[in-house]
Amino acid sequence: MASAEDAQHLSTRHLLGIKYLNEADIRLIFDTAREFKEVINRPIKKVPSLRDITIANLFFESSTRTRISFELAEKRLSADVVNFSASSSSVSKGETLLDTVNNILSMKVDMVVMRHPAPGAHHFLARHIQANIVNAGDGTHEHPTQALLDAFSMQEVLGDLRGKHIAIFGDILHSRVALSNIFCLQKLGAKVKVCGPPTLIPKYIPSLGVEVSYDLQDTLRWCDVANVLRIQLERQEELRYFPSLREYARFFGIRKDLLDQLEKPILIMHPGPINRGVELTSDVADSDHSIILQQVENGVAIRMAVLYLLSALRPPSSSG
Amino acid sequence: MASAEDAQHLSTRHLLGIKYLNEADIRLIFDTAREFKEVINRPIKKVPSLRDITIANLFFESSTRTRISFELAEKRLSADVVNFSASSSSVSKGETLLDTVNNILSMKVDMVVMRHPAPGAHHFLARHIQANIVNAGDGTHEHPTQALLDAFSMQEVLGDLRGKHIAIFGDILHSRVALSNIFCLQKLGAKVKVCGPPTLIPKYIPSLGVEVSYDLQDTLRWCDVANVLRIQLERQEELRYFPSLREYARFFGIRKDLLDQLEKPILIMHPGPINRGVELTSDVADSDHSIILQQVENGVAIRMAVLYLLSALRPPSSSG
Amino acid sequence: MASAEDAQHLSTRHLLGIKYLNEADIRLIFDTAREFKEVINRPIKKVPSLRDITIANLFFESSTRTRISFELAEKRLSADVVNFSASSSSVSKGETLLDTVNNILSMKVDMVVMRHPAPGAHHFLARHIQANIVNAGDGTHEHPTQALLDAFSMQEVLGDLRGKHIAIFGDILHSRVALSNIFCLQKLGAKVKVCGPPTLIPKYIPSLGVEVSYDLQDTLRWCDVANVLRIQLERQEELRYFPSLREYARFFGIRKDLLDQLEKPILIMHPGPINRGVELTSDVADSDHSIILQQVENGVAIRMAVLYLLSALRPPSSSG
Repeated sequence: MASAEDAQHLSTRHLLGIKYLNEADIRLIFDTAREFKEVINRPIKKVPSLRDITIANLFFESSTRTRISFELAEKRLSADVVNFSASSSSVSKGETLLDTVNNILSMKVDMVVMRHPAPGAHHFLARHIQANIVNAGDGTHEHPTQALLDAFSMQEVLGDLRGKHIAIFGDILHSRVALSNIFCLQKLGAKVKVCGPPTLIPKYIPSLGVEVSYDLQDTLRWCDVANVLRIQLERQEELRYFPSLREYARFFGIRKDLLDQLEKPILIMHPGPINRGVELTSDVADSDHSIILQQVENGVAIRMAVLYLLSALRPPSSSG
Repeated sequence: MASAEDAQHLSTRHLLGIKYLNEADIRLIFDTAREFKEVINRPIKKVPSLRDITIANLFFESSTRTRISFELAEKRLSADVVNFSASSSSVSKGETLLDTVNNILSMKVDMVVMRHPAPGAHHFLARHIQANIVNAGDGTHEHPTQALLDAFSMQEVLGDLRGKHIAIFGDILHSRVALSNIFCLQKLGAKVKVCGPPTLIPKYIPSLGVEVSYDLQDTLRWCDVANVLRIQLERQEELRYFPSLREYARFFGIRKDLLDQLEKPILIMHPGPINRGVELTSDVADSDHSIILQQVENGVAIRMAVLYLLSALRPPSSSG
Repeated sequence: MASAEDAQHLSTRHLLGIKYLNEADIRLIFDTAREFKEVINRPIKKVPSLRDITIANLFFESSTRTRISFELAEKRLSADVVNFSASSSSVSKGETLLDTVNNILSMKVDMVVMRHPAPGAHHFLARHIQANIVNAGDGTHEHPTQALLDAFSMQEVLGDLRGKHIAIFGDILHSRVALSNIFCLQKLGAKVKVCGPPTLIPKYIPSLGVEVSYDLQDTLRWCDVANVLRIQLERQEELRYFPSLREYARFFGIRKDLLDQLEKPILIMHPGPINRGVELTSDVADSDHSIILQQVENGVAIRMAVLYLLSALRPPSSSG
């Protein structure tokens, strides 16, 4: 691992969204993640890189896999970690976000990994506090580390993504993943299409230069990669975005027989948790073309890379 | 502490239940636990043995003492630890157990300590995943580390358990401890009897070669050790297994005057948490014959031993 | 940092309350905290002082900032940490406090940091267990580390507190901070006044040698420091201690124009979380005279000092 002195630097000291990264930033993160992926596949998975860093994980919305992935990334970099979740917090006592975060920073915390339901929350903090901020999801807006690990995983298999066809299937409307994916893939030169029922595709998608399709088979024929998003069953119960799960699975669920009809293999991806039998069938999820578990593995490496690169851009007051 | 190379090996790479251990396995665990008990009684209670290991504690049912005991065992072996509890999990989002666990393993986790309400859950995982699995309780079926620490604690006081009389008192039906205790004690050559009200003793007990008694004083006279199980007050409120707590205490509660009437001292054990005045009185719980707190201390040593011995049987892909 | 051998000692092996500390104890804690404050402002914020110590944080009432502050203090001293919160505990199963704590101590825990709603809980434990006990709040009685960090923060700005005028504003009745503050400031020679609506000031306050005022402006003119307590909105909803928040803010809220009318600057303090616009306005909370965030920073240093000094007074059985 190159020392912080030798390393190239990111163009930003926060990871607020893919929107604010340039292509060189993304490629630097990928190069660094590749090195960390080697580390976590060694018997001794730990490096002392962030030994002198304290990271606060602030989850104002619940999360399992993203929180555990960040926590493992932090521990494998030897950082000290404090966890904070909104349920057990002063937030319910009417404290402002800035007061909560400033309090935690006053305890000499260097970096903040935050999931917050409000899209503006991370920008607001970045204007007011010293620590590096990593967006771990802001409502249905951006979830940049997920997009980075998705693109990194595609690139591992397909090589450079320039000109590649990537389709995002399913619930684009409620996804915290879709927008970051679109930004990231476009910056890497890929062509992006979204496909799902009209009720689950926001009106602004075409304005991003992304094609919209309502035809599953057509889109499968077009794409090199199918990134299949989760149908959020809990939302469907309240507001019916489609007639039934069965009908959704029939028209938009990806089945083995559909893949077998294609002339070429396509990669199957899913950010998890999977609803087996809804957005894809079990034989698709577990097939050779699925890289769903590689995505998870790469998530730890990508998060190690992001934290490591941002730590080189700490404000002077905190770095010495 | 012997290095992993010199160590004897367990006959199994998972601890799914006492049922799957042979006597040599149990004795190897005890020998190793004896060494770790010395470690945790030194001023510096930590060894670097599992420095390169990541352990996930997956608790799909709540637990205080078992979870803390495992966590301390893991930290004193210098393992990296991630905790997962069902309440904050993707489980509620309809994800399958295998998907949840595979996700966590893809983050390069070497061992899984799991409590799960379904008895088959650990076996199912063992067939499908690479990591070593430790059963930390599967409903009312097995809780092997509790049985190991119980037998280890008895043996510390009584020496070899061959031919010793061990009685298990109280709520056998809902206990996650009874079955593992029976298997473990029988493998070590002890004779086992259970004693409680008929409503709390499952019908299959005699088929295990275990005597059943409904007479407290008779059983106390017979036994060298009284392992007293907790009355689960919360279950009694729903379905009345006995007329009242007061009546339970009168017929099955262990009191000092009953012990004083015996011709020999007997050991008093309890897996906790105790209902003082129900299954035993305070003067019994706190008497010289009680080894309840030694059980807790031994729990950490036993769990260190189990994790250490299983870690020597990691799959090659994960150990290098 | 002086080694434990050279260090002066506290006169007590528990921190149950400021009531049980003498002035020399408080000054020793401050001297030690000053050294630890340097440590946490260095790039490498960690010392190995408590490398061989296991600390259990037992929170029987919820807490965010105090828990995180203790946890960071413990980690920066390199202690091993186990966390326990009542919600996920055996407490709900009817176990006694002593059984719960004895169980945890049997796992070879050296120190217990406990928040508990009952004022007598910490004393009770101190009589029955071996480990050092730190009171992290006992209902509305004492919260000694908060009082220490408050006085330490005042002294950093004002120098010796002898003869200084310290006013405590607001909800004295429900505060877990007021009593410890009064004891600590009096032991350091300061004069203390409390000011708030009569319904929120307990009758026994004058018997402590503390003046009571119901006049905000008068008290502001008198004091060098205004320690402003939080109005506990959740209590106000149940039992109306004052007509409305708006009326409270009008008569007892500290506003910038009130401070501007004073002839001298006064320090503004608050234990958090702040209700901006209720007990003080935002421009006051964020003004140059506010040392609210310094309090938080000093909290980690004070807690490191307390844990470090108590660890030198461990019982022989645990220290070797």
